[in-house]
Amino acid sequence: MLKKYLLAPGPTPVPETVLLEMARPIIHHRTSEFSAIFDNVRRRLPEVFGTKEEVLMLAGSGTAAMEAAIINTVNIGEKVLIIDAGKFGQRWGDICRAFGMDVHKIELEWGSSVKPEAVEEFLRANPDTKGVFVQGSETSTTACHPIKELAEVIRKYDDTLFIVDGITSVGVYDTRMDEWGIDVLVTGSQKAFMLPPGLALIALSRKAWARTQKVKNPRYYLNLAKELKAHKDSTTAYTPAISLIIGLDKVLDMMFEEGLENVYARHEINGQATRAAVQALGFRLLAKDMPANSATGFYLPEGFEGGKFIKFMREKVGVTYAGGQDHLKGKIMRISTLGYHDAFDTIIGISALEMGLRKFGVEVELGSGVRAAETILEDYIGK
Amino acid sequence: MLKKYLLAPGPTPVPETVLLEMARPIIHHRTSEFSAIFDNVRRRLPEVFGTKEEVLMLAGSGTAAMEAAIINTVNIGEKVLIIDAGKFGQRWGDICRAFGMDVHKIELEWGSSVKPEAVEEFLRANPDTKGVFVQGSETSTTACHPIKELAEVIRKYDDTLFIVDGITSVGVYDTRMDEWGIDVLVTGSQKAFMLPPGLALIALSRKAWARTQKVKNPRYYLNLAKELKAHKDSTTAYTPAISLIIGLDKVLDMMFEEGLENVYARHEINGQATRAAVQALGFRLLAKDMPANSATGFYLPEGFEGGKFIKFMREKVGVTYAGGQDHLKGKIMRISTLGYHDAFDTIIGISALEMGLRKFGVEVELGSGVRAAETILEDYIGK
Repeated sequence: MLKKYLLAPGPTPVPETVLLEMARPIIHHRTSEFSAIFDNVRRRLPEVFGTKEEVLMLAGSGTAAMEAAIINTVNIGEKVLIIDAGKFGQRWGDICRAFGMDVHKIELEWGSSVKPEAVEEFLRANPDTKGVFVQGSETSTTACHPIKELAEVIRKYDDTLFIVDGITSVGVYDTRMDEWGIDVLVTGSQKAFMLPPGLALIALSRKAWARTQKVKNPRYYLNLAKELKAHKDSTTAYTPAISLIIGLDKVLDMMFEEGLENVYARHEINGQATRAAVQALGFRLLAKDMPANSATGFYLPEGFEGGKFIKFMREKVGVTYAGGQDHLKGKIMRISTLGYHDAFDTIIGISALEMGLRKFGVEVELGSGVRAAETILEDYIGK
Repeated sequence: MLKKYLLAPGPTPVPETVLLEMARPIIHHRTSEFSAIFDNVRRRLPEVFGTKEEVLMLAGSGTAAMEAAIINTVNIGEKVLIIDAGKFGQRWGDICRAFGMDVHKIELEWGSSVKPEAVEEFLRANPDTKGVFVQGSETSTTACHPIKELAEVIRKYDDTLFIVDGITSVGVYDTRMDEWGIDVLVTGSQKAFMLPPGLALIALSRKAWARTQKVKNPRYYLNLAKELKAHKDSTTAYTPAISLIIGLDKVLDMMFEEGLENVYARHEINGQATRAAVQALGFRLLAKDMPANSATGFYLPEGFEGGKFIKFMREKVGVTYAGGQDHLKGKIMRISTLGYHDAFDTIIGISALEMGLRKFGVEVELGSGVRAAETILEDYIGK
């Protein structure tokens, strides 16, 4: 018997009530029954994005939303600035290059957060930059970028859009798209929205919508203007991911019942507890200045077989952590605190880590990580 | 958001795969489809009881099986000996009295286990005793009785049946009904069998079946001879609890896939870890000599509001423990390790206890219970 615990930063566990809702017989999408659910989601989703604009629902994964963000707002050949501090910053660059944009980068060591001054400096020298692309939380490094501060810089440039991959930050952090001045914000269903993958979400500011008019790139499936028109008519341009939208309706029930501020506070406290625990166990965080509340990455001991450990924990202990990506493969691991995750999920992640590491010859004191986590969690539980 | 953790000794959590199986459209019970499932259960259930006899499935809770055990094997007015060391020992007596048996008792302080010599002494003086009734594990005190040793004593008395309530011991302990000489063994579905309540299981030895012929008590629903005949025909005398039997088929798949010896070892290790943890936290076990692996009961501090604490933990923290029953209400609490329960369920139970107790002013050292549990569990996980 092996119970499974999913502690990777996406896909995250799906709540039972949501699974049950999604398991009901499929309904047709061109019906008033589906439109009512669709509108119920449309009405509530913008608050999670901190916007009054429409949040579009596309059948696709987060990368589809990233591509949509690019091809609808920047013409082929135009200049873009990519903040590349991890695998997903890299992906912004890869997609832009695939479409032939003029890609410039601020490259940072993995775990670092960009300084707004560096962006300001670039924009001052390159006022023809059409978009600055960044991650709210860089999932590969579990470090955030200072979104609000970046927005303050970028909004001063009339020609420049601020485009944020919020895949592991929307629903984790109080994100104020309109107030701060984010122009495009994207996320996926399998993170803070606690759903299976397959639904991409994207919202555009007025400034970004105006830009879409001037963009001539060929586009069909990811034509956001067409999708906006359909959404306003309570439908989608193409077949929607029906079950996921039904699930999202239920997820929003849960999130608003909990209260968005409590959702954010829960992520904060579990992030804090996980960081305290891994540090108490003697590990160094990967994130330098702005560790994310979506997941906690930390360096494994020199020479430790990280990949083997993670495989063992998943297959033999039932606990799925995430390893490192690219050059950090085997060298770091990441523990998620994202989505349908509470205090005892944090405890399981740390307790399993304590026992598992000792099996791999790492001398950690049993209970010491859990104690550090409990010290933070004890004020939180039971509220 | 409040995730729920059920750590009471029944009902216990039902595995997701079993829930899904039981959620399939109901089938009719007088069909070959149902008979095939029924026979698949009949074929495998006896091994869990350690018998070659038929294990009967009755639609009812454990108490129905207890009543069936009595009224099919002891005539009204006949002498019985009840080992009463807790609420369920008391229940044996209550049912026997309700039917007018001549009830004699060995009453023990809650938490104690009966000494086989005490039973031997009684039987020597009362060889006309028709049955000795005991619990394999007394759920109210989390103490076991020495079933194998008791059987050795009782089997020497030709007129005396040994009747065991195995409601929280069958599936927890390797129970060898035939080999040891248990004459009637009963259990329910909502304990080690990991199902919702509503299915009672009962097996009789040859000696007990012979006795049923001589028993004249009026009985209809709980007429075991009639039920045996029906079972041999791959059916039941009355409408069976169809979904629960379908669930039981799936549960047996799980138990045999894990291996019964591993199921028992899992209960043993989680019982040990829980006992070590609550003792490390400074508590005294309720069970004196033979603590059960189904659940761990321990004394709460003098003056501590146990009932309030358990309610708080259930309603505000999401962790359901069991309190004390009758005169121990509010004075003890019990943490289950029964059924669909693994190492991390134990960790959750202890971690929640550590944090929760401090909220109620009990000074326990955070992480110290978890450390004690991990010290035992670390060799077990990942095997």
